[in-house]
Amino acid sequence: MSEDLYGFRDQGRRFVLRSPVAMPQASTFLWNRRMLLQLNVRGYATAQFMQPEPAKYAHAPTLEAKTFMQPEQPYYAHHPGRFCYVRDEEGGGLFSAPHAPVNRAPDGFAFDVGQGDVAWTVRCDGIEVELGVSLPPDDVAELWTLRVRNVSGRARRLSVYPYFPVGYMSWMNQSGAYRPDLGGIVCDSVAPYQKVADYFRQRDFNDRTVLLHERMPDAWEANQAAFEGEGGLHAPSSITQHEQLACGDALYETPTAALQYRIALAPDAVEEFRFLFAPARDDAGIAALRERYLSASGFADAGAGTREYLEQGSGCIRIETPDPWLDDFANHWLPRQVYYHGDSNRLTTDPQTRNFLQDHMGMAYVRPETSRAAFLHALSQQEASGAMPDGILLAEGAELKYINQVPHTDHCVWLPVCLRAYLDETGDDALLDVPVAGADGTARSVAERIDRAMQWLLDQRDARGLSYIAQGDWCDPMNMVGWKGRGVSGWLSLASAHALQLWADICGRVGRQAQARLFRDGAAEFNAAVNAQLWDGDWYARGITDEDVVFGVRADAEGRIYLNPQSWAMLSGAADEARRARLLGAVDAELVSPWGVAMLGPPYTGMREDVGRLTQKFPGSAENGAVYNHAAAFWLHALYAVGESDRAWRTLRAMLSGPDAHDCLQRDQLPVFVPNYYRGAWRLHPRTAGRSSQLFNTGTAAWLYRCLVESLFGLRGDGDGLRISPQLPAHWPRARALRRFRGAEFDVLIERVTGVDRTRVHVDDEPCADGRIAAIRAGHRYAVRVELPTHSEVA
Amino acid sequence: MSEDLYGFRDQGRRFVLRSPVAMPQASTFLWNRRMLLQLNVRGYATAQFMQPEPAKYAHAPTLEAKTFMQPEQPYYAHHPGRFCYVRDEEGGGLFSAPHAPVNRAPDGFAFDVGQGDVAWTVRCDGIEVELGVSLPPDDVAELWTLRVRNVSGRARRLSVYPYFPVGYMSWMNQSGAYRPDLGGIVCDSVAPYQKVADYFRQRDFNDRTVLLHERMPDAWEANQAAFEGEGGLHAPSSITQHEQLACGDALYETPTAALQYRIALAPDAVEEFRFLFAPARDDAGIAALRERYLSASGFADAGAGTREYLEQGSGCIRIETPDPWLDDFANHWLPRQVYYHGDSNRLTTDPQTRNFLQDHMGMAYVRPETSRAAFLHALSQQEASGAMPDGILLAEGAELKYINQVPHTDHCVWLPVCLRAYLDETGDDALLDVPVAGADGTARSVAERIDRAMQWLLDQRDARGLSYIAQGDWCDPMNMVGWKGRGVSGWLSLASAHALQLWADICGRVGRQAQARLFRDGAAEFNAAVNAQLWDGDWYARGITDEDVVFGVRADAEGRIYLNPQSWAMLSGAADEARRARLLGAVDAELVSPWGVAMLGPPYTGMREDVGRLTQKFPGSAENGAVYNHAAAFWLHALYAVGESDRAWRTLRAMLSGPDAHDCLQRDQLPVFVPNYYRGAWRLHPRTAGRSSQLFNTGTAAWLYRCLVESLFGLRGDGDGLRISPQLPAHWPRARALRRFRGAEFDVLIERVTGVDRTRVHVDDEPCADGRIAAIRAGHRYAVRVELPTHSEVA
Repeated sequence: MSEDLYGFRDQGRRFVLRSPVAMPQASTFLWNRRMLLQLNVRGYATAQFMQPEPAKYAHAPTLEAKTFMQPEQPYYAHHPGRFCYVRDEEGGGLFSAPHAPVNRAPDGFAFDVGQGDVAWTVRCDGIEVELGVSLPPDDVAELWTLRVRNVSGRARRLSVYPYFPVGYMSWMNQSGAYRPDLGGIVCDSVAPYQKVADYFRQRDFNDRTVLLHERMPDAWEANQAAFEGEGGLHAPSSITQHEQLACGDALYETPTAALQYRIALAPDAVEEFRFLFAPARDDAGIAALRERYLSASGFADAGAGTREYLEQGSGCIRIETPDPWLDDFANHWLPRQVYYHGDSNRLTTDPQTRNFLQDHMGMAYVRPETSRAAFLHALSQQEASGAMPDGILLAEGAELKYINQVPHTDHCVWLPVCLRAYLDETGDDALLDVPVAGADGTARSVAERIDRAMQWLLDQRDARGLSYIAQGDWCDPMNMVGWKGRGVSGWLSLASAHALQLWADICGRVGRQAQARLFRDGAAEFNAAVNAQLWDGDWYARGITDEDVVFGVRADAEGRIYLNPQSWAMLSGAADEARRARLLGAVDAELVSPWGVAMLGPPYTGMREDVGRLTQKFPGSAENGAVYNHAAAFWLHALYAVGESDRAWRTLRAMLSGPDAHDCLQRDQLPVFVPNYYRGAWRLHPRTAGRSSQLFNTGTAAWLYRCLVESLFGLRGDGDGLRISPQLPAHWPRARALRRFRGAEFDVLIERVTGVDRTRVHVDDEPCADGRIAAIRAGHRYAVRVELPTHSEVA
Repeated sequence: MSEDLYGFRDQGRRFVLRSPVAMPQASTFLWNRRMLLQLNVRGYATAQFMQPEPAKYAHAPTLEAKTFMQPEQPYYAHHPGRFCYVRDEEGGGLFSAPHAPVNRAPDGFAFDVGQGDVAWTVRCDGIEVELGVSLPPDDVAELWTLRVRNVSGRARRLSVYPYFPVGYMSWMNQSGAYRPDLGGIVCDSVAPYQKVADYFRQRDFNDRTVLLHERMPDAWEANQAAFEGEGGLHAPSSITQHEQLACGDALYETPTAALQYRIALAPDAVEEFRFLFAPARDDAGIAALRERYLSASGFADAGAGTREYLEQGSGCIRIETPDPWLDDFANHWLPRQVYYHGDSNRLTTDPQTRNFLQDHMGMAYVRPETSRAAFLHALSQQEASGAMPDGILLAEGAELKYINQVPHTDHCVWLPVCLRAYLDETGDDALLDVPVAGADGTARSVAERIDRAMQWLLDQRDARGLSYIAQGDWCDPMNMVGWKGRGVSGWLSLASAHALQLWADICGRVGRQAQARLFRDGAAEFNAAVNAQLWDGDWYARGITDEDVVFGVRADAEGRIYLNPQSWAMLSGAADEARRARLLGAVDAELVSPWGVAMLGPPYTGMREDVGRLTQKFPGSAENGAVYNHAAAFWLHALYAVGESDRAWRTLRAMLSGPDAHDCLQRDQLPVFVPNYYRGAWRLHPRTAGRSSQLFNTGTAAWLYRCLVESLFGLRGDGDGLRISPQLPAHWPRARALRRFRGAEFDVLIERVTGVDRTRVHVDDEPCADGRIAAIRAGHRYAVRVELPTHSEVA
């Protein structure tokens, strides 16, 4: 991968990809509190906003199913996108920016990804087109800037056609027309419904899609079929066969939004245009959007607002290491992804409980007051039994949808796991005493509610002392291991043990000794049961089905070993030192791949009904045996927990794309987020192994940030203090971090020093024997120096 | 419209369109008992089969919503279709048959639509490609024949690429690969599910799609993205940039099925290929399909089976008139459409009750034993109250979906309306005594069940004596007139009156005098109530809303007059002669358009909440005020009922496209079926007015056939006889019909004769004074001569 093709710039806050074809799936995303805009390098786009469920304002050309956000979405010629055709009025040459639909090989290209904006620069035939977009902080609207520059050295006459397809809006009614009074193309529709109740639910929907312009166009087209003609999207007849667009409308036909500007450009001259693309309810709303944004100052104000919004998500650490790609990612992109999860809740109204809690575990390092509110909100939906529901409802009238209608048994686990990170980061033990009215109608303190959740985990064990799995635990795809009510989960038993221990620790610290004893005993029982039933000689089995078949064991030809039980056996302490050594070796041998640590191996090639849907979803597919980064992050966390810092580094390294990585092309992804998975089955399907899912919704981000802050740099909150114990990889002689913590700043320099035999910490030039800085003074800037043994001296 | 562009041939059984661009939406359909294949002139295709709900085996490029069959579906580059690229190996020229995806203007073109097959002939650059398809009678499979002929007069080397896109099969798992052992490309998927119960429901689905070849290809491609490359569908890189397809596979990627044959053709030489495209469950099923069909004899046998199947649907009449386009349509295409409805039940598992009954009213003229079974099946789902459910469930486990979940109040009406046609056609009064176990758990005779249905209609009246409309009556879009339980329907009150009369007549004939009196009195009450409440001076109002607003009246600026109340007021007898004259004039003035009789007028341009969803679905759209052919057919039936034969002719004429029609291009439809609507609002939206919905699912077909047989040709069953009273249009001096009826044949010659003052009938050269042939002898061929007054003598 050459530096010419792509790389970070602007202190790591921007990323540039210089080819539209090298990584055709590469994408990034912008968001604000109400909308999400995913943008592909070639100009394809997927936008969603909340009303209150996720809705679209630019659609596929056919009636789309409503579904959850999916990985690896395919692009195709008529996929929604934002494009600009350019026709040479003299020579007739045609190209489009960013790249689709014409797909002409450009003379110059840049896909320039910022934190709060995205821009393309495309050069063809001596014309340079700059196309840029950002979102305002609070409204659902895309703000587009188009610049056309003549770099050909001679006078040029051009037609420029911003083309924003709107797609098949609705079978019930759709139309489109230019509205001179509103200054743009307005596409109208009625969201389909058949039941009277839906009418009232939908009557105030933003069923229009508008493309508003600042500068008056010379012509336009609102009819998709008329725009394309016989020529098709790659060479629309309305552009190639006619001087001007026909100014047509769409009547119960697929609408579109295409404008035409006829311009003459002297050498080096530039023309600039601004557009707004958005859903809207009515004329007044459209006029208000225009008034607020559609000017240079409106765009500038929105940009400032967005920068301010993003600034709130900059995270709690800045690092400087021998791996600058990691610095860029950790300083800018990873906290941004964590912030996105925590502030938007993935643009759903019913996030899965486990996701919601883990997303807010991440948010504890970014904006902890949001995490606090989220934990309280989640607990307010706890059931009378102590169980947590499958999803947390965020909006009035929201319902559990999709996977949240399938009962899973792991949700309680995440309460102490995530709360522990929040308490460490904030020291906010007072949260435990806050009363919460639950779905059971009773007010109980946070601590009492978590007690009940832990008790529920203890109750949901079979006679062997193992956790029932019902229709699933963490791993969505596996839904038939225990649907008859007998099957158990090895992973969940271990995760329960870990959760109980964490909660016992917290209880012990705040003086709840009886609870601490109870839950510590419960954890020990879980560990003992797993060791008795599920240790398979070199690793832990994944579970036991309704039919009493132990799976994830060496006797299995496929799905022989699963990663999650091994990770959580290290976290829970079930694995003693000997077992730990064996399972580390087994994971290295069976699951570690060039693309990261697979969630299971070997990949399934056929359905195994006694194991469940996991084998139904994946057989034969390159996703089977994928590197699920969320699971890889648990493994990372566990490796750090047991001091396996070099294995941890290798795991972390494989989870990310970097500019110097040999594997970026194979991943087909920009290093601006960590995806939920990379394809696996690398021996079976080498062609597709490593490819990114392109899906940025993943608990991975929160765990990765936690590992970075608390383990790699070892700067973890501990009661009223900060504990310092970095676990740098062997090849780093030194690293630096600026850590914000409880209102103070810690400027931490970590160095390997010859002759040092253990980690030594100095704070403000004073030795700190236990490596824990107590009684933090807000507002103070601490100078911390950490000396580590050199790698050879450790080894 | 020129005869060169298109026309019937082969005694009207085939239709040829000679341009791929003149009518780009033009389509036809093939079906068998298990599947439906809609084919567009340009090669786009929509296929469905039952497992048991409608399913697809060639998909859109994105996740499609499951929905009912929709009108005016948009086509776009990646719409499913069946294509064949042809590349000149020497010159590099490229085109595709039928037309898409390359869309190159052909030197010759024919879209040749048969009753049981469809074929295209496309000539470019001296190469003629013939592409043809038919379905076997019983299996879900498409049988494709490809012929490539060198008409260039010189030796040629070509690559020929059958390209059958499979689309986005499933987010859960999809793949595709060539299977040498099975002889074709096999695309695999898992139908998505999340709930355990769905797994068991879906595990035997035909989740594969296969393209099998007879002759071994030189290369292939199973990966959609690899097939397209940067070139896109109009110029795939795999074709334009490479000698051979790469023989690639799809792994959790969008699969496709593309083959390559490299052939050398001497002048005038032809190469022929056969393919099979189908869904499948497993290897054994694929091998069985290949074995059964994939040979010249297999195709021939299937063709013979299909012809035999279609022969069963040829209907009860052949006509010969001064309008040959009508002969073609009535003799071949209309009975085919009626047969399709009756034999396939529109490929749903829960047809709307009104549709199901009317479809089988049509089937009474085609295969009456199927109608009989359908009526009994429908009555077996009658509720204890006497109400009919909103849909009739046809398959085990089927559920009421979509519009069938919205309560409508008209379903009972259709029992006597449709049964009357069946009884007239068959004389099968014994049906009335057949016991039927209903949803109420009780066995009652058909007659008793219909009594209860009629009583239900009588019960569902408000204090004014008008029928409640609840969330809708016949007209789906209007669902909020009476959702609060108070609004009433003018149309339904009149339809109830007509239904009660029809049932009273039948009761009277079979000696059930008490019931006859009761229902005749009920009908009179309905008529009186409507006349008292809803006569608006020149026409009947449509109804009264929950808020007591009468609508469909002259005071309304939009939706001032509705067609249905006028039609059924003539049928029910509510309209006396004076009122009839006024409403006829009003319909002429307000609703008759060049494209037929609109369902309402003037079109709504905005929502009117007190009237209901009708105004919500359509405002501003050209569909608003459409010519709903189903409503136009009621009007036609009513016009004939009152002897308005010339108005009836004009109405009928406007419902159809014919080769001599000036409006075919505007309709954008072939005259091989009657669509459910033509766009309306012809003054408001002249550009789109008249355009066909392209949707062949419509009760129109049954009504049109009934009108043709019983009214235009006046050959209606009556007790044990056949009543003869034709109502020819004025411009026909003579017409001839061959009518099959109760096992006999009637060769009927109708002529206008000067000096005749009323219809005179001769049967086998004997005068037949009352125009009724009694005591039909099966097996006899009757020679019938009918003399009509000349038009001027009548007028």
